[in-house]
Amino acid sequence: MLLLTVDEHSAEPIYRQIVAQIRDKIAGRVLLPGEKLPSTRRLADRLAIHRSTVATAYQELWALGFVDLSPGSCPRVRDRMQMATAADRGEKGLIDWQALSSPASENIWQAHRRISPQAGREDTAALINFASLDMDRRLFPLESFRACLDRAVKNHGEALLGYGARAGFGPLREYIARRLQGHGISVTTDEILITNGSQQGLDLVFRMLAAPGRTVAIESPTYSYVLPLLRFYGLTPVEIPVRRDGMDLDALEAAIAREKPVLVYTMPTFQNPTGITTGQAHRERLLSLCETHRLPILEDGFEEEMKYSGRVVLPVKSMDKRQLVIYCGTFSKVLFPGVRIGWLAAEKECVERLVAIHRFSEIAPSMILQAAIHEFCQSGHYDRHIGRMHRAYRKRMQTAIRALQRHIDPAWAEWTEPSGGFLIWLKLKQPPCPPADWQALLAAHGVEAATGSDFFNWETPETYLRLSISPLDEGEITAGVQRLAAALRQAHCPD
Amino acid sequence: MLLLTVDEHSAEPIYRQIVAQIRDKIAGRVLLPGEKLPSTRRLADRLAIHRSTVATAYQELWALGFVDLSPGSCPRVRDRMQMATAADRGEKGLIDWQALSSPASENIWQAHRRISPQAGREDTAALINFASLDMDRRLFPLESFRACLDRAVKNHGEALLGYGARAGFGPLREYIARRLQGHGISVTTDEILITNGSQQGLDLVFRMLAAPGRTVAIESPTYSYVLPLLRFYGLTPVEIPVRRDGMDLDALEAAIAREKPVLVYTMPTFQNPTGITTGQAHRERLLSLCETHRLPILEDGFEEEMKYSGRVVLPVKSMDKRQLVIYCGTFSKVLFPGVRIGWLAAEKECVERLVAIHRFSEIAPSMILQAAIHEFCQSGHYDRHIGRMHRAYRKRMQTAIRALQRHIDPAWAEWTEPSGGFLIWLKLKQPPCPPADWQALLAAHGVEAATGSDFFNWETPETYLRLSISPLDEGEITAGVQRLAAALRQAHCPD
Repeated sequence: MLLLTVDEHSAEPIYRQIVAQIRDKIAGRVLLPGEKLPSTRRLADRLAIHRSTVATAYQELWALGFVDLSPGSCPRVRDRMQMATAADRGEKGLIDWQALSSPASENIWQAHRRISPQAGREDTAALINFASLDMDRRLFPLESFRACLDRAVKNHGEALLGYGARAGFGPLREYIARRLQGHGISVTTDEILITNGSQQGLDLVFRMLAAPGRTVAIESPTYSYVLPLLRFYGLTPVEIPVRRDGMDLDALEAAIAREKPVLVYTMPTFQNPTGITTGQAHRERLLSLCETHRLPILEDGFEEEMKYSGRVVLPVKSMDKRQLVIYCGTFSKVLFPGVRIGWLAAEKECVERLVAIHRFSEIAPSMILQAAIHEFCQSGHYDRHIGRMHRAYRKRMQTAIRALQRHIDPAWAEWTEPSGGFLIWLKLKQPPCPPADWQALLAAHGVEAATGSDFFNWETPETYLRLSISPLDEGEITAGVQRLAAALRQAHCPD
Repeated sequence: MLLLTVDEHSAEPIYRQIVAQIRDKIAGRVLLPGEKLPSTRRLADRLAIHRSTVATAYQELWALGFVDLSPGSCPRVRDRMQMATAADRGEKGLIDWQALSSPASENIWQAHRRISPQAGREDTAALINFASLDMDRRLFPLESFRACLDRAVKNHGEALLGYGARAGFGPLREYIARRLQGHGISVTTDEILITNGSQQGLDLVFRMLAAPGRTVAIESPTYSYVLPLLRFYGLTPVEIPVRRDGMDLDALEAAIAREKPVLVYTMPTFQNPTGITTGQAHRERLLSLCETHRLPILEDGFEEEMKYSGRVVLPVKSMDKRQLVIYCGTFSKVLFPGVRIGWLAAEKECVERLVAIHRFSEIAPSMILQAAIHEFCQSGHYDRHIGRMHRAYRKRMQTAIRALQRHIDPAWAEWTEPSGGFLIWLKLKQPPCPPADWQALLAAHGVEAATGSDFFNWETPETYLRLSISPLDEGEITAGVQRLAAALRQAHCPD
């Protein structure tokens, strides 16, 4: 006989007490699969409760799979499949995720494990970090952003919390279009697509183009996150060397004839990783060349706003009368990366096609942060912040260049001297006995820099380091260069 | 001779006045390409200003591409490429974006234009909208969310504004793992990946698997946004019919043998579009079948939290001892979609591989809204909100079902009667003279519903409508069903 008790004074409803006790008896094999339970009437009589309470308990046990119910007969215990527990997950599961992954995603998985972790990592406290392009958090205008965020939610209310406009928050698109005019770029609101940082902009453009056998011309070296992404989509990178004055346009012209790329990806201003900015004549020739071949350009202006010294060269997009340039911008490299807001500016049809791809992969972006950034820009905080950033980084870059000149022997390395942005590119000269692991040598001297090989599509015989000053103040920059010098000295003059 | 004037009292710096005047003269063809400008000394003397001011102006003109400078000789006017203007963009550009798009992205572009716009669209005010799965904005807990957002930024500060953790905000991952235990799912924090809504979760899984020739088993009908996405990634959908009790498992078994799919995509609870929930026995058989074939399941629990009546069936993932289920959840269908926060729960290696794909397409998610949602959940608002939602929709669904029973003649249609969620699926019976366009007929009667054909991979000969009650209150639901009835009456009894 089934022995159950109910406690009328418990906070737990009676039907749940019954469910719990029967589940326990099934788990403890007191009740076995196939065994009959009492009818609702009988159990109700026995426990002196209402029949409907027993019926509710049996319904719940049925929903949970512990009993079978059929009209007119008593419930029977089911042979229920067991619940998974933490213990089960101690073992390797049934699926071989590597085999299941496509070759392309296996490839990106390998790149993920190879490329220095940078973002999202706990800082190794003692190291001075020239590796990260994260921003200096001490300069974040946190309080004014917080106020703008609150105001945006207050002003726009529920409209921000439903599905939003697919191409982004209208007023922010409008603001970006207006702001681009300050960089000589003439675009309208419907030629702007807001993205989750500029990386998503690149991702969408590559996805739009990806088809077997297609190639994309890129600078070499180039932004490290672009190479795995191109390969992931089956696009073959065609590498065009970067010279002192930018991408080698003769090499590009030859590559266009030979490889028929579907896109040229370029960072004309403060190129990542070299920090090089191309001149007006270079930009004109690049654009003419691509016009001649009806070849779209993806112009990555990730540090466009960080022109804190020297004169201003306008983006290639500013001369784009034939609408072949897709311009990619971001708030991450002057404000803060954590809002993940960037944008693409391109011909309207191109924007609409990218919206379609975005729609099915994410439905729509969140409007909340976009509205907050709009509020932040609109109330003048953005311009003031850019002013502060320019003053800070003009000094920081000067400090970095001076420290390199003072502490690094020209026999050890040569480097670029950018007039803006955050990046300096060092080419190391081969020391008499090169260390087995440059990163380990640097770490031993308390400093870290991005490994040059991440920025090439092939194994480069030279050794490069990319120094980013974005998260560091002047004191840290000077100390970091001194540590770098000590590491290089050790490589060149081993005891 | 070059005639320039400077106004010392102007707010505009003198060098900029010079730049502006020379630019104007070049634009007006007063200065022609190749023409020499005066030396800095000569122009400085003539204008009675400092030489360095002229030098600055010439530097700026050089940077902007208006002059060539070479050491020791006078600047010469360059034949500068013109800036693009709004007028240029009136014409079609040089790029044929359709030809440039891959066949796959051309396909998704067509789907984008075909599938009813729903999200992000301005509401057609007069229509009662059963088409949208957007939520009822009148129920949004806006003020408590606003307070949580502010508190999150205040408490976590700058840490939220830098690049965040790739798999999502740690405390929110932890909360989700804990909450899933309430649904019988045992997972740890590192088995959770936070996504931009559940759509991004699906996107990442499909991208991980996509390789030519691969197939994915799906329910038919299924969620309309999944079909274009699968095809975009070159994955062929294998359609398994949905019966009254869920996916036809005999058909699935046959399809597994015949088509060797790499994944089964299923919505066991309140399936979209049918609203059908499968029973425990169905879930056990599905899981066993997939275990036997080492076939991963993508379980979409998008409305898991909306079990507002009837007993609770646990997710397939709750029994997943062999870790073959990737579970996909979201805050969009019970809280609000505008935060764009969903999650995947899967074996750790699977999560890490998805993180790698996400990293290169977006770097990292924004932490700000994730921290706000964590604050919202943590302080009990989420549970209270779910309680309110259950009370509201239990009544709304009853209202909808009753209105259908009262107003729709069984000779016109049959429909599902879900015990939770927001979706009711109507199969229309063929009227004597079917309208050329059902949507137009509905619109003429002031009501809108999602077109059944969006949910099939092929042209279905039957006519279906999906009614979503998510944005509507009881009065709107009743009125909407009456309008629907009037439309059906007209189709069946034309004058």
